[in-house]
Amino acid sequence: MKHTVQFLPDKRTITVDHGENLLAAAAKAGVYIHAFCGGDGVCGKCKVQLLEGELEAGNSAALTGEEINQSIHLACISSIVSDSTIQIPEIVQSDGRALKSKPKTTRSLSAESLEILVGEWQIAPPVRKLFLKLPPPTLDDNISDMQRLFREIKKHLPDNPEPDYDHPELIRELPFILREADWEVTLILLHGKGEEEPDRIIAVEPGDTTDQLYGLAIDLGTTTICGVLLDLNSGEVVEEGSGYNSQIGYGEDVISRIVYSQRSGGLRILQEKVVYTINTIIEDICKKIIINPSDISYIMAAGNTVMSHLLLGIDPKYIREAPYVPSVNQFPLTKAADLGIMAHPSVRLFLYPCVASYVGGDIVAGVHSCQMHKSDAITLFIDIGTNGEIVVGNKDWMVCAACSAGPAFEGGGIKFGMRASSGAIENFHIHGETFDPMIVTIGATKPRGICGSGLISIVPELLDAGIINQRGKFVRDHNHPRIRKGTDGWEYVIAWSHDSLIGEDIVITEIDLDNLIRAKGAMFAGYQTLLTSVGLSFDDLDRIILAGNFGAHIDLERAISIGLLPDIDRNNFFYLGNASMLGCQISLTDHRRFRERAEVRTLMTNLELSDNIDFMNHYMAALFLPHTDLDLFPNVGRGNE
Amino acid sequence: MKHTVQFLPDKRTITVDHGENLLAAAAKAGVYIHAFCGGDGVCGKCKVQLLEGELEAGNSAALTGEEINQSIHLACISSIVSDSTIQIPEIVQSDGRALKSKPKTTRSLSAESLEILVGEWQIAPPVRKLFLKLPPPTLDDNISDMQRLFREIKKHLPDNPEPDYDHPELIRELPFILREADWEVTLILLHGKGEEEPDRIIAVEPGDTTDQLYGLAIDLGTTTICGVLLDLNSGEVVEEGSGYNSQIGYGEDVISRIVYSQRSGGLRILQEKVVYTINTIIEDICKKIIINPSDISYIMAAGNTVMSHLLLGIDPKYIREAPYVPSVNQFPLTKAADLGIMAHPSVRLFLYPCVASYVGGDIVAGVHSCQMHKSDAITLFIDIGTNGEIVVGNKDWMVCAACSAGPAFEGGGIKFGMRASSGAIENFHIHGETFDPMIVTIGATKPRGICGSGLISIVPELLDAGIINQRGKFVRDHNHPRIRKGTDGWEYVIAWSHDSLIGEDIVITEIDLDNLIRAKGAMFAGYQTLLTSVGLSFDDLDRIILAGNFGAHIDLERAISIGLLPDIDRNNFFYLGNASMLGCQISLTDHRRFRERAEVRTLMTNLELSDNIDFMNHYMAALFLPHTDLDLFPNVGRGNE
Repeated sequence: MKHTVQFLPDKRTITVDHGENLLAAAAKAGVYIHAFCGGDGVCGKCKVQLLEGELEAGNSAALTGEEINQSIHLACISSIVSDSTIQIPEIVQSDGRALKSKPKTTRSLSAESLEILVGEWQIAPPVRKLFLKLPPPTLDDNISDMQRLFREIKKHLPDNPEPDYDHPELIRELPFILREADWEVTLILLHGKGEEEPDRIIAVEPGDTTDQLYGLAIDLGTTTICGVLLDLNSGEVVEEGSGYNSQIGYGEDVISRIVYSQRSGGLRILQEKVVYTINTIIEDICKKIIINPSDISYIMAAGNTVMSHLLLGIDPKYIREAPYVPSVNQFPLTKAADLGIMAHPSVRLFLYPCVASYVGGDIVAGVHSCQMHKSDAITLFIDIGTNGEIVVGNKDWMVCAACSAGPAFEGGGIKFGMRASSGAIENFHIHGETFDPMIVTIGATKPRGICGSGLISIVPELLDAGIINQRGKFVRDHNHPRIRKGTDGWEYVIAWSHDSLIGEDIVITEIDLDNLIRAKGAMFAGYQTLLTSVGLSFDDLDRIILAGNFGAHIDLERAISIGLLPDIDRNNFFYLGNASMLGCQISLTDHRRFRERAEVRTLMTNLELSDNIDFMNHYMAALFLPHTDLDLFPNVGRGNE
Repeated sequence: MKHTVQFLPDKRTITVDHGENLLAAAAKAGVYIHAFCGGDGVCGKCKVQLLEGELEAGNSAALTGEEINQSIHLACISSIVSDSTIQIPEIVQSDGRALKSKPKTTRSLSAESLEILVGEWQIAPPVRKLFLKLPPPTLDDNISDMQRLFREIKKHLPDNPEPDYDHPELIRELPFILREADWEVTLILLHGKGEEEPDRIIAVEPGDTTDQLYGLAIDLGTTTICGVLLDLNSGEVVEEGSGYNSQIGYGEDVISRIVYSQRSGGLRILQEKVVYTINTIIEDICKKIIINPSDISYIMAAGNTVMSHLLLGIDPKYIREAPYVPSVNQFPLTKAADLGIMAHPSVRLFLYPCVASYVGGDIVAGVHSCQMHKSDAITLFIDIGTNGEIVVGNKDWMVCAACSAGPAFEGGGIKFGMRASSGAIENFHIHGETFDPMIVTIGATKPRGICGSGLISIVPELLDAGIINQRGKFVRDHNHPRIRKGTDGWEYVIAWSHDSLIGEDIVITEIDLDNLIRAKGAMFAGYQTLLTSVGLSFDDLDRIILAGNFGAHIDLERAISIGLLPDIDRNNFFYLGNASMLGCQISLTDHRRFRERAEVRTLMTNLELSDNIDFMNHYMAALFLPHTDLDLFPNVGRGNE
């Protein structure tokens, strides 16, 4: 259910989901409310008045009985449960002057775009089950058990070529399964690679188990591994699970993992760790819905090139050394159990192919999921993470690159940076006159740090308020307690220690700003270099698709205003979410869509940016907010200069 | 080199190989010579006179100086080295009467028929090598190592589909092999199943190793396992080796092996034993020509259904129980190393498909080798061994059966039966008047026992001489020291203890004769049942092909005269030798011929004889020498009745 909320006096309206936090809704609407502590109902600053509609509010000692009678609420602990009108109180200075914060333009990306991008798919998974009742052998009909099985399959699938089987255990078990099950068995059949290729029998189960057919999609992240269990009979998600990649103890990023893999036994340890994490997820999921791990009939996974190498136990050594060559980009269909994964011995694990050392299977899965390979539209596909992978192209051609953007958007290299979890500042406004912050945190708790979308809120707000300049340097002549010189140079205090969960001041420093500018500069230089390489410019782009968790909460206007995204028609931006996982889910559900992944990979040509002069030039020019070439950002205000 | 030898006074001539033993040659020519001891130059009975030509003779104290001057030689220690004329002395009885033995009609099968049967084949093995020099990677060309390899393959094999690879070790090793070998490597490529299917890369070796390409053919016998190493570049046999199947300690025949396999751990032990034997053969062969077992790039094997199951570790339990169902008849292409065979981890072992529990891959390989599946000629293919497998058909249809003939032709169930090895009586004549034997043994030593071809010589000779009747019973009224009642009933003394190597009388008993008659009766009933099942008779047969070691030395006339083989035009008999091994060798050399094996197997329909009324009737009628229905043997003399 959706509700429309109007904020007075500015008459800004926003439509939000039922139960949305009022403070977060105001922030999204671009409305400033005093909110220093992120929302714990403690500081009592974020008082608003409910004029129409209804709010579900938590208790707080910060409100007097009179305030409650006047329908005054604390925004941070209020949930929107109907269409409402909310009055934001004016801030009155000691000199009696009312300070009114100017509302900001914000724009979030709609999740409704998903269906348009990914299209329809059938429930026709790469594995399927077939129940058979075999006639028992007689002296007149004593063909081998396997032939008896094949003959019966042929009756049910007359147009299929004779199936194949490759698992020696199957031959060994078959006679006993058949006789114990009184000649009534269920086959698990794996689709052949092409329509012409025979199916493969990967398992035979006693009795009729056709109603139990599960597949697991795995997003194999450097930091987090997610699993989604699909019922392949209905195509529906039945359970999800995730966990930190246990390799983290051996290095935070792919480079440190490669370094560790070069130590004696290191490769084996890293493989064991990722397998351990996958097994933990499988166990968790299976426990929740009370199935056995061996009931999973197919595993579809995607990860970056290093993660893919490590999962398969392939040495990633040369990925790190120029000229950055992976051992292999197309991985064979592996038996999951051979890797140590808790699975039936015959179950296959498919790992999406990679394109290059730093454009991995996660990107291929993402591009695959949104069908760039079938569209005329010239698309810029962006996955912002540690690396920042980008793809430009359409159904006829694609170029791609990794930008080495660095981990700023994941909280890396930022003094109080953190991942998008509870306590992370994810939205932020600043009062144009008082320079006081409005902090919205994940989980509506006191703030613990700043996540990527928080960073993309903070920087343009500081720029807009004139606290920093377009080079990301603090304007030295403000005399305000929140703007100060700290141990790491100039900084802005986002939350005082008493308003923070960590008991110290949460600040953003000039070094943080520098890292952010380098990161967004690398991304932008990447877009330009790829486009130039194919003789195109931003004007030629029909659409931009953002993938990755990062894109979920960012404010499009702000991201453009700092030059992280190009300044094109906002209606041409789409948000895809965890596209890597999406690709795996689609492939797991529809084997015809699955087959198309080969096409995607073949279309994609990697451009190596690490030694590219063009890229370096674009990068230097992009180290500015939003850019040294302001003609590239016609719709972005000129800031405070 | 061949020589023609004429024996006087009967003017019988025979053409033999250079170096052939004179006694053996005489026996083949149907000429009787006194020879009680099989040939050791000791008894001095086998004196002959050289009239023309030359003989290479061993020394013997049995000849006087005068005899030597008269060119008298002992046949048993003389070798034929030129065209010769030999005078056989008359035997003069005490009453002065000269006893002249009637020459016998004999006919051996020509090995020259081989080429006609097996046809030509190309040197185009299922594996091949390809040497590649790869351009090292650069920043502008940093595709994965595997893609680099594929790209180079494509340049050399433009018409081939992109090759595939499936061995995870290859992905893991490739980056290091490429760099250590300075980007010059040799691939081992496995042909795809069909022309359309991609080749598979099964190994990459540093440097140029194209001149080393070996394949091993294995005949997987219940008793003996043979290996033939082929140079797959030239198609030539470079080495051979063989050994007793180490499973023998756990049972002499397939049934006792199945029984053992049902004991705890029995299956595993039997698999280990056969693998041990194969490894011993591989080691022996490799030592002889100084190569490494890992230099063998393909292993092609054929064995009966039980041996095939045991090699792959598949439980043969249900083969023994009615309705006699094997687990599987078409075996997957297995990695030899997975079975414990000393081989490169990627090397494939192909095992010929079986047709039924008792018509195995050895028979399919045999039929495959002689191209029955391409010929219009209606052929009876016979492999006489423990089981006696027979196939009738041509390119359009084939029926086959196993006859349960029993092991008589391999020496089993015969009191002094033995396998065809040194000291085995392999040819035999009897003097029609004196009833004295002429014994030819393998290795020209004193006799140790009787092998299959010896048995097929002895029985018709006894029948011809009137010593036994057509039911295989001794004619009781002969008064001769060699015909007597022994511990096992009536018997004929073939060699007195002083003429034998084992220090006791070697005899053939009525029980032996009964076993032989049952064995040949089962074979003959098998031919008839198969022919009847497709509405044919012996008259419709265009040819008969004998396979197996057994056929090598048998006398066709005699085999027909006892009803082991049908009485058709002798020119339509062909001898194929170890057809199972031949099939493996052809398949190993020519992958197009190899592909045809699927056709062969599909054509063959098994007829189960164990419960077949028709078969039982034919069998009962065949328990007679040659047969109760003498119309089936128009060209065989009516014996002594």
